[in-house]
Amino acid sequence: MLLNTPPAPTLTPKLIPHSSLPNLSFPPSTFLPKSKPTRTPFLLRAMIEKETPEAHRPDTFLRDYDASSSSSLSVRNRFEKMIRDVQDSVCAAIEAADGGAKFKEDVWSRPGGGGGISRVLQDGSVWEKAGVNVSVVYGVMPPEAYRAATSANGNVKPGPVPFFAAGVSSVLHPKNPFAPTLHFNYRYFETDAPKDAPGAPRQWWFGGGTDLTPAYIFEEDVKHFHTVQKRACDKFDPSFYPRFKKWCDDYFYIKHRNERRGLGGIFFDDLNDYDQEMLLGFSTECANSVVSAYLPIIEKRKDTPFTDQHKAWQQLRRGRYVEFNLVYDRGTTFGLKTGGRIESILVSLPLTARWEYDHAPEEGSEEWKLLDACINPKEWI
Amino acid sequence: MLLNTPPAPTLTPKLIPHSSLPNLSFPPSTFLPKSKPTRTPFLLRAMIEKETPEAHRPDTFLRDYDASSSSSLSVRNRFEKMIRDVQDSVCAAIEAADGGAKFKEDVWSRPGGGGGISRVLQDGSVWEKAGVNVSVVYGVMPPEAYRAATSANGNVKPGPVPFFAAGVSSVLHPKNPFAPTLHFNYRYFETDAPKDAPGAPRQWWFGGGTDLTPAYIFEEDVKHFHTVQKRACDKFDPSFYPRFKKWCDDYFYIKHRNERRGLGGIFFDDLNDYDQEMLLGFSTECANSVVSAYLPIIEKRKDTPFTDQHKAWQQLRRGRYVEFNLVYDRGTTFGLKTGGRIESILVSLPLTARWEYDHAPEEGSEEWKLLDACINPKEWI
Repeated sequence: MLLNTPPAPTLTPKLIPHSSLPNLSFPPSTFLPKSKPTRTPFLLRAMIEKETPEAHRPDTFLRDYDASSSSSLSVRNRFEKMIRDVQDSVCAAIEAADGGAKFKEDVWSRPGGGGGISRVLQDGSVWEKAGVNVSVVYGVMPPEAYRAATSANGNVKPGPVPFFAAGVSSVLHPKNPFAPTLHFNYRYFETDAPKDAPGAPRQWWFGGGTDLTPAYIFEEDVKHFHTVQKRACDKFDPSFYPRFKKWCDDYFYIKHRNERRGLGGIFFDDLNDYDQEMLLGFSTECANSVVSAYLPIIEKRKDTPFTDQHKAWQQLRRGRYVEFNLVYDRGTTFGLKTGGRIESILVSLPLTARWEYDHAPEEGSEEWKLLDACINPKEWI
Repeated sequence: MLLNTPPAPTLTPKLIPHSSLPNLSFPPSTFLPKSKPTRTPFLLRAMIEKETPEAHRPDTFLRDYDASSSSSLSVRNRFEKMIRDVQDSVCAAIEAADGGAKFKEDVWSRPGGGGGISRVLQDGSVWEKAGVNVSVVYGVMPPEAYRAATSANGNVKPGPVPFFAAGVSSVLHPKNPFAPTLHFNYRYFETDAPKDAPGAPRQWWFGGGTDLTPAYIFEEDVKHFHTVQKRACDKFDPSFYPRFKKWCDDYFYIKHRNERRGLGGIFFDDLNDYDQEMLLGFSTECANSVVSAYLPIIEKRKDTPFTDQHKAWQQLRRGRYVEFNLVYDRGTTFGLKTGGRIESILVSLPLTARWEYDHAPEEGSEEWKLLDACINPKEWI
């Protein structure tokens, strides 16, 4: 008994309601004038209902009219099916490679439609922490955000704009310091016409990416990873890989360190200037490439012998991962500010991390080479 | 050798210049219209020169005209002396209690005046990481910020406004999970008259506080800590302790968790509505109370036996500390955005931290009691 006099609890910690937006990671910029990306986005808190835990996975999180047979070929329908298939296949591959540990699943829904499935595998034999989440959200954005996002005429005054967003989001942190962390996220966003301006245009966007964050560089691993990304991109447009590779290097930038979080991959956001079917196919191809891009690297590195020094360096890099996610990542910071489901949002953080004062690896060391590649992004293929 | 082909570094990591604002922690709100606290503050980056490492501590970081004998009784002078004395006395007490480890010191200056001393003790026998920094900064703020901060007439168009800021800032993270983390920070801020509006008013503010973050509650420790804070406050104004105790509970609030970082203490900011000499005396009294508020608790708890479970809970609470500092702390986020000296700013982060998915302590357990007190702040005395 540590307390001399136990405090009288006035509220049970477990009774505090988790408030709601799931690990959605759709771009806050969709809500904002493009010229002011640093302004705080509007508060979605009041505009999305609270989630309810569910005992079973529903067939769909779509609202009835979206899920009806007449809508079965809609992009909403097909995107939800795609992200749930990807969640299943990635989780199956992770469990098989981990060889014992199982994902814990949390299902939740909202009364008016929408919901999500969070799956987390913690303290496995290969992965320290692996999270794979899907979510489907119906919400309402203020008319100013809609006007800014659509470049609609400022004189038109539509009412609040309903939106739909769905995505799959995953971070996989292995234990072995020679096995890299992987992150991927693919999302789709749509606005309805404003309620009192039925003629106004509907809008849609795709976003996402897959990126690799090792603590040590094995050049053959990084080449393999980027080659799979390029192959997926090249099936759709030869300009995609170079453009989205650079976008990834630019996005995962820890400005206060002048270094990237890792060795990149591909990233794109607010993408709507191509055929919608093509972009659905492209997102699907990228998401379906995750297992072949990542698992072969894990198989090669998961049992590599390592020292305490290797582990400490991995932990320092995990600290950088935390810095990026909490300070810069748009999905994370947006989710925290808008009252998303905290455990789903912060499942991206590693199980453990480390910060040493003024640490600098010895010039020419393997640690230094990783840091150099994070400071000066390379062309890997 | 991990690499098949070593990458060709195009830039030596150590050559990347650290850019500059030290762990100053003066309130960004001083630069902002009070009604819009969430807007991104203006970029100070271009307005403060880069720091230069120094081999020796100078007698003063003040500019010559501030340091001259005719100015020796100025608040700038006396505040710098106070924070440097406090740095010395706190570091001496920490080293004595740690019984072996020594602080590593980094001194830096800026060509036009100003500079700082960072002291860090890492991996001692009692403290995992202890940082005690002082800094003195001369900078320039845009006229809009000055007008907003001073409520000056909007029709007056002064030029850029020179400012002076000085502070001591410290975070002390012990190893033993029953020994609490301490944070304190005391700072003073002044503006000069705008260069082209010599008649415009000069302004000054004090800010600061001392707060305690244990992983386990020993009620007698928390009472002792708060009693010392109250005693310091009561010497100056009986309204200070209740007001600054509540301000502390409100400030160290992790909104996305609906919990405080720890068990509070005192916090105040932008304070200028009392006699300037009184507030200088009050800040000095608070800073001089740190050792007597904290060290007796450390002496009692530093050798308490603990289990892996106690350590894991401490590490989870350290994770919350990281969340608060990176997401909410105004000094940290402001420093990161404005190009402060990163190693000084982030010395506040613990050596190690942990995030478990959906962790909830058992109701009634010691861990639960701590969490409850973070969710429902108590009156300790």
